[in-house]
Amino acid sequence: MKYTDFDKSAGYAGLLEIANKSEAFDFKKMLNADRVKTCQTFLAEGLVYNWAAKSVDEKVLNALQALSDELELIPKYKALLEGEVMNTGEDRKVLHQLSRSLDEKTATGISVENEGRDLGAFYRKELIRFSEFTERVRSGEIGPAPGRRFTCFAQIGIGGSDLGPRALSLALENWAAAEGKITYRAEFISNVDPDDASKISSSLPLEETLFVLVSKSGTTQETLTNELFVKEKLKNAGLDPGKHMLAVTSETSPLANNPGYLDSFYFDDFIGGRYSSTSPVGGVILSLAYGNDVFKDLLIGAASADKAALNPDITKNAALLDALIGVWERNFLKMGCTCILPYSQALSRFPAHLQQLDMESNGKRVNRDGKPISYSTGPVIFGEPGTNGQHSFFQLLHQGTDIIPLQFIGFKQSQRKDDSVIDGSTSQAKLNANLAAQITAFAIGQGSDNGNKDFPGGRPVSLIYGDRLTPQALGALLAHFENKVMFQGFIWNLNSFDQEGVQLGKVLAKKILTKAGKSSGDPVLDAYGEILGV
Amino acid sequence: MKYTDFDKSAGYAGLLEIANKSEAFDFKKMLNADRVKTCQTFLAEGLVYNWAAKSVDEKVLNALQALSDELELIPKYKALLEGEVMNTGEDRKVLHQLSRSLDEKTATGISVENEGRDLGAFYRKELIRFSEFTERVRSGEIGPAPGRRFTCFAQIGIGGSDLGPRALSLALENWAAAEGKITYRAEFISNVDPDDASKISSSLPLEETLFVLVSKSGTTQETLTNELFVKEKLKNAGLDPGKHMLAVTSETSPLANNPGYLDSFYFDDFIGGRYSSTSPVGGVILSLAYGNDVFKDLLIGAASADKAALNPDITKNAALLDALIGVWERNFLKMGCTCILPYSQALSRFPAHLQQLDMESNGKRVNRDGKPISYSTGPVIFGEPGTNGQHSFFQLLHQGTDIIPLQFIGFKQSQRKDDSVIDGSTSQAKLNANLAAQITAFAIGQGSDNGNKDFPGGRPVSLIYGDRLTPQALGALLAHFENKVMFQGFIWNLNSFDQEGVQLGKVLAKKILTKAGKSSGDPVLDAYGEILGV
Repeated sequence: MKYTDFDKSAGYAGLLEIANKSEAFDFKKMLNADRVKTCQTFLAEGLVYNWAAKSVDEKVLNALQALSDELELIPKYKALLEGEVMNTGEDRKVLHQLSRSLDEKTATGISVENEGRDLGAFYRKELIRFSEFTERVRSGEIGPAPGRRFTCFAQIGIGGSDLGPRALSLALENWAAAEGKITYRAEFISNVDPDDASKISSSLPLEETLFVLVSKSGTTQETLTNELFVKEKLKNAGLDPGKHMLAVTSETSPLANNPGYLDSFYFDDFIGGRYSSTSPVGGVILSLAYGNDVFKDLLIGAASADKAALNPDITKNAALLDALIGVWERNFLKMGCTCILPYSQALSRFPAHLQQLDMESNGKRVNRDGKPISYSTGPVIFGEPGTNGQHSFFQLLHQGTDIIPLQFIGFKQSQRKDDSVIDGSTSQAKLNANLAAQITAFAIGQGSDNGNKDFPGGRPVSLIYGDRLTPQALGALLAHFENKVMFQGFIWNLNSFDQEGVQLGKVLAKKILTKAGKSSGDPVLDAYGEILGV
Repeated sequence: MKYTDFDKSAGYAGLLEIANKSEAFDFKKMLNADRVKTCQTFLAEGLVYNWAAKSVDEKVLNALQALSDELELIPKYKALLEGEVMNTGEDRKVLHQLSRSLDEKTATGISVENEGRDLGAFYRKELIRFSEFTERVRSGEIGPAPGRRFTCFAQIGIGGSDLGPRALSLALENWAAAEGKITYRAEFISNVDPDDASKISSSLPLEETLFVLVSKSGTTQETLTNELFVKEKLKNAGLDPGKHMLAVTSETSPLANNPGYLDSFYFDDFIGGRYSSTSPVGGVILSLAYGNDVFKDLLIGAASADKAALNPDITKNAALLDALIGVWERNFLKMGCTCILPYSQALSRFPAHLQQLDMESNGKRVNRDGKPISYSTGPVIFGEPGTNGQHSFFQLLHQGTDIIPLQFIGFKQSQRKDDSVIDGSTSQAKLNANLAAQITAFAIGQGSDNGNKDFPGGRPVSLIYGDRLTPQALGALLAHFENKVMFQGFIWNLNSFDQEGVQLGKVLAKKILTKAGKSSGDPVLDAYGEILGV
């Protein structure tokens, strides 16, 4: 396998030439009903990725295919699945896809050995262990005290141990309720701000609450602080913290094999935090709250998107095409942001998860060997659910001075199927009418002699749509974006799987906390500490 | 008053010359403890705006002061307060600051007449009316039925009728609880996605819930749909919707003077949606949930920031300086985004409110007369609370290829004052140690031979800090950003108070919903409608 900086590739030069020479893509001329219905590809689990309103014509598409072939994106993905060390900075394999395997023959048909250990088997063993455990909790067999049940579950974690599981929990809650699943309350404590742990813990029925402590390293400052914070609350309520807490961690962490927890479930260094939602990090809390079958359906959906991402034909591989179009927009059309707009209230925190997934993975300025690069990498990711966003920041998206590529997500049916016909249409129809209207308005616009009412259009838009946000569809959606980010990392020749950029802040924070009234040796740091009262 | 396009001003030319000629601001050389402690100014209500880690030296500061003077930013603000038509596109005055006046002598000492009506008196009358009403509800005098009380309040609104009040409600909830105020549950229904209204309404004790319907025009599709959705639920529960719903609207709206509501409270076209949190739009729900005195304290805080924003000396006017530095970064340092990072869980949705406030106000491509402009206007605004963000997108902020200006917010004390000493420090100390550490890391960075561990620094950072997030501080913070956005709008010579960019989507959505199986006349729109099942 060859690893080349992006700007040294023939594909880069080819795309640059197209961008410099060709006239801008004319949405008004190019976008018609036929294009809307044909420029799309199957993603997985009934989801479709539609790129009709992206500024991509035959020429660009061919150049992107050539780039994908030249940079060996699919072989690189296969190498990752096979256990090649893709996290070069930390000298680690990257195996979150393997966590989706429900049987011995893993979803992608590949397993990985490490130091004589079958890692697929290890992940499956933990999946089976926590599946059984969580069902025993849900059935009441395991409870806080004889004759009592756990009715509430609260995850303590931050970053990847928080955003993904939280977004998925919100996304599954309505669906599970509508499908008649037995559901329990799931809460999340993340911030070291004491107002977070204090508010959540004071709102919980502590005697019926099971906490899930999640930290791979077992050393995350916020999470350990919040663990002790909560344990104090439990003790003050006359409860035994050991009966109210699980650990999800790595086998080598200080939290592992600790009898102070009701039970512990394991994952390892080959599953990065922001990629860990399909490991016990997401699995334990989601299984407790919504049932193990729901979580397994999510894994099936993720695995099927992983499989679909193996297709070398970019027009038949949604994650790959999405990645390539993103690079076209970022490096050649010079667009610095991407906005994620799910027209689904259930996905209200999905943009926050994708913000972490994408920006922490590809917000890098060195290549996979640590050498500086001279092209743009990961964009800023932001977004809110529609239609809410329409009444908020869409003004800038339509008529601002910068063009922001847009990524819409929509479903034909609601999750709860509780709807009313008002003024001749259901709320779901209104939601999707707005979605179709926004895409058209962004792409085509509408002229006016009044500059203030003139919509220039030309805002590139993609749409992922499906019938209904089921656990399978949600899993596919999650994996789609993980794989998109992975492919972009390959293109930019960077390591999407480490996060050295978070280290310096940790070191400096520790400096302040341990200086004990004296100087930390860094006068600027001390001065900021002083004005902030620390 | 003269209104000139920004790039035609002498100040623009001066700043451009500085930007083109001068070497980049060297944070490592410029930023020291003295600068941290002196480059700051009183904002209001104990809050301080610190710009030590902004790439602004004496020369830039002088040029910004000259720009402010030349463009008559303070006289324009005064003209706005005095009722000049600043919303040129809609031919309206802009009077949200006037909604903060608690007595006849308004906060800024100015009142406004319109067609013979004293508008200060009108806003005050409504404030008094809803203050009395909400206290009668809280005391139990007004209830859903004899002997029963309202214990739950739910706002139905979208955009400005949702994001601001929701962010403020979250920001006050902990404080009110910690101060022993009687607090009630406040919920918000906004999205036309039926899953939103269905989920919230099914979680409420309907027989004890009072809904607050908020729409200035009385024609907002989402809000009217959700009103009828909720009314159906009330009827199905055997309740009289008229006894469970208030209206907040304009006197000329179809909702006004409607006996179908328990009562109605009014504001007018001179208070834009995203500026309406200090009007009955925010006032009614916040007063119901936390008490009228809490809301009045918020108004006092906002009014005091409004007053502070009158100072023509930019080093003594936080909102003005914040605005000017933002323009320096946007137009001369070519930075396209601004990231808002409150180190306070209570402000978890404040960035979403500011995203609307800023992007809907200044995401414009024409000047106040509707003529195209050729310079960049409003940036993309995004953010999440710290320390959460540190474990998410901070990677890109530290080591990404684009520089994103950062706006931190912090407080010395927590809101709930429920804290634990763990490992020798409180959670609040850990929170602020992280905040100080991040600012230092962003501004100064840290070199390394390993490119992957190299932090270039040079990320411009401001910090707003205070003792504690009280209602007064929150009001000041809210008004600070409103005034910052207003000043930037003046600089860019645009109308920050209309939102024509949201219209086209509404028109197209209606086209689909009313086409009744036939073509809307727009084949692209129809094609998107078709794939989305509408």
